[in-house]
Amino acid sequence: MTTTAPTDLRRRVTDLVGRVRAGDVPSVARALTLVENREAVSAQILHELWSDTGRAWRIGITGPPGAGKSTLVAALIAHFRQEGRTVGVIAVDPTSPFTGGALLGDRVRMGVAHGDPGVFIRSMASRGDLGGLCAAAQEACDVLDAAGKDVILIETVGVGQTEVEVVDAADSIAVVLHPESGDSVQAMKAGLMEIADVYAVNKADRPGADRLEQEILASLGLRPHGDGDWMPPVVRCVAATGEGVAALAAALGSHRERQQATGGTETRRARRVEQRIRLLVEAALRERFFGNAAAAARLAGLVAEVRAGRTTPYAAAVEVLGDASEVRSQHGREP
Amino acid sequence: MTTTAPTDLRRRVTDLVGRVRAGDVPSVARALTLVENREAVSAQILHELWSDTGRAWRIGITGPPGAGKSTLVAALIAHFRQEGRTVGVIAVDPTSPFTGGALLGDRVRMGVAHGDPGVFIRSMASRGDLGGLCAAAQEACDVLDAAGKDVILIETVGVGQTEVEVVDAADSIAVVLHPESGDSVQAMKAGLMEIADVYAVNKADRPGADRLEQEILASLGLRPHGDGDWMPPVVRCVAATGEGVAALAAALGSHRERQQATGGTETRRARRVEQRIRLLVEAALRERFFGNAAAAARLAGLVAEVRAGRTTPYAAAVEVLGDASEVRSQHGREP
Repeated sequence: MTTTAPTDLRRRVTDLVGRVRAGDVPSVARALTLVENREAVSAQILHELWSDTGRAWRIGITGPPGAGKSTLVAALIAHFRQEGRTVGVIAVDPTSPFTGGALLGDRVRMGVAHGDPGVFIRSMASRGDLGGLCAAAQEACDVLDAAGKDVILIETVGVGQTEVEVVDAADSIAVVLHPESGDSVQAMKAGLMEIADVYAVNKADRPGADRLEQEILASLGLRPHGDGDWMPPVVRCVAATGEGVAALAAALGSHRERQQATGGTETRRARRVEQRIRLLVEAALRERFFGNAAAAARLAGLVAEVRAGRTTPYAAAVEVLGDASEVRSQHGREP
Repeated sequence: MTTTAPTDLRRRVTDLVGRVRAGDVPSVARALTLVENREAVSAQILHELWSDTGRAWRIGITGPPGAGKSTLVAALIAHFRQEGRTVGVIAVDPTSPFTGGALLGDRVRMGVAHGDPGVFIRSMASRGDLGGLCAAAQEACDVLDAAGKDVILIETVGVGQTEVEVVDAADSIAVVLHPESGDSVQAMKAGLMEIADVYAVNKADRPGADRLEQEILASLGLRPHGDGDWMPPVVRCVAATGEGVAALAAALGSHRERQQATGGTETRRARRVEQRIRLLVEAALRERFFGNAAAAARLAGLVAEVRAGRTTPYAAAVEVLGDASEVRSQHGREP
């Protein structure tokens, strides 16, 4: 892959990769920026970092807005640091596709890790390409992994499939709920239920915590037992005070041990690799078919033809593909 | 496109297309099911229906969970029916990627349109493919459009970019908020703000409606004026009683007239066509590279190689593409 890159560029990539491996903070930040901005060179960097990945424990933290995920992440950072482990955090906010900035920011976490070289926190926001966001979040985890972080927390608001895909990259997933969430959580639980390895009932000092715990336990009865017969424990905590956070970390640790013993970790990581290859191939194909001036002009021409009533999007797609076989082959089944 | 389809299949497609055009309810339902299930033949049906689309007024209805969107849709159906217009509804629920079923269901709407041939309601749920869901929702609108519905309401919970993409297919978009939503709405407003053509402050009889209205108006001051200088009106309503619903419909109507006068409708529809062509091409490419047994086996082999440490996802992607040019070409920029 590197043969066509200019020598100078190759040297710079190699230098950056070496410094990331050594855990150099500015270099990690630089690599993350290249990855987040989907810079072309990031593929080369990630290719070279790949052999250093796979050591970190990746924990996904998701749940509805207002569940207290950021506070819980701050509490988990403190917990893991007390254990002597280094921590990386990727906080993904896909709810604001237009403003391009993380909405919740790092205000909660600012104080936690200030000046601690054992903690690296990066917020990422969607820039209008969800597939790209999922890929970037996973790749950002790779950078932190290669940089030697022991634990990587991936935080995202759990409101849709994108968010699920983001945390799907994790070895262990905590779904955070809180007692006062009402109907909206009811609606969302079904989507989050199947991915939870551990439930955190946050703000457990508020009214309704018992009821929420009962609801979760009841819903677990309906859960398909995909991952062996692991039954997600429900852990009550108050992230703001740190109460129950050690128990949550312990529950996640039990899940990890179980996964390693049963091969579940390998299954998830293989799925992650498959997804990565798919996303890379799809991005390259998008680039080939839509990413240059000639392709853009052809597409604009076809759009005009469709709007003028001279063709349809279906016929136009065949033309873009330059080979009708795929679209034709879809017409085999009975209506 | 039809040349390779068997004669019998072509005849069935032509029959179904003819009955959909005539507004035959079972045929519309059949076509929607084929579209929702992403059956291969649906491309042929949609290709043939295309010339009959473009007449309906497509209105997107989105907002956070609990804002009362379904109730508002029911009220809008009643309003448009009183005006003598036929109505189609596509209710999209992307929050449950795993269960595969619409969570909120049609309980609110069941009574509204029961037995009225001028109303057709279909709920759609994600089956794990968001791009597919957006495409299916748009194509379902095409079916209802070709079937002669005057107004098509596209309802989706506004919690992420997917939902935004779903309603992005609409000519006019109403963002529904309610006074008691608190922080989560604050967080989401930024994402929904840029797409709102009209704001509906629902449950306006509850405390906090004034404050919500003021917040929206304040945020509008920050809004980029993308669509000419249309300033989204804020309409207060109580969907459950029908109060303010006529005013909401009137505001949406003003937006539509304005759009038609300024060419905004054509701009949106051209964007919609471009998006459709892209999605069709991407689906065909995914099919070509991952959709057959040989491709699946090759991918599984590459995943195993990556997991064994003998290659990386980046090198594997080049191999899948069978032509390294795309990935190589991405390595031109400076790190």
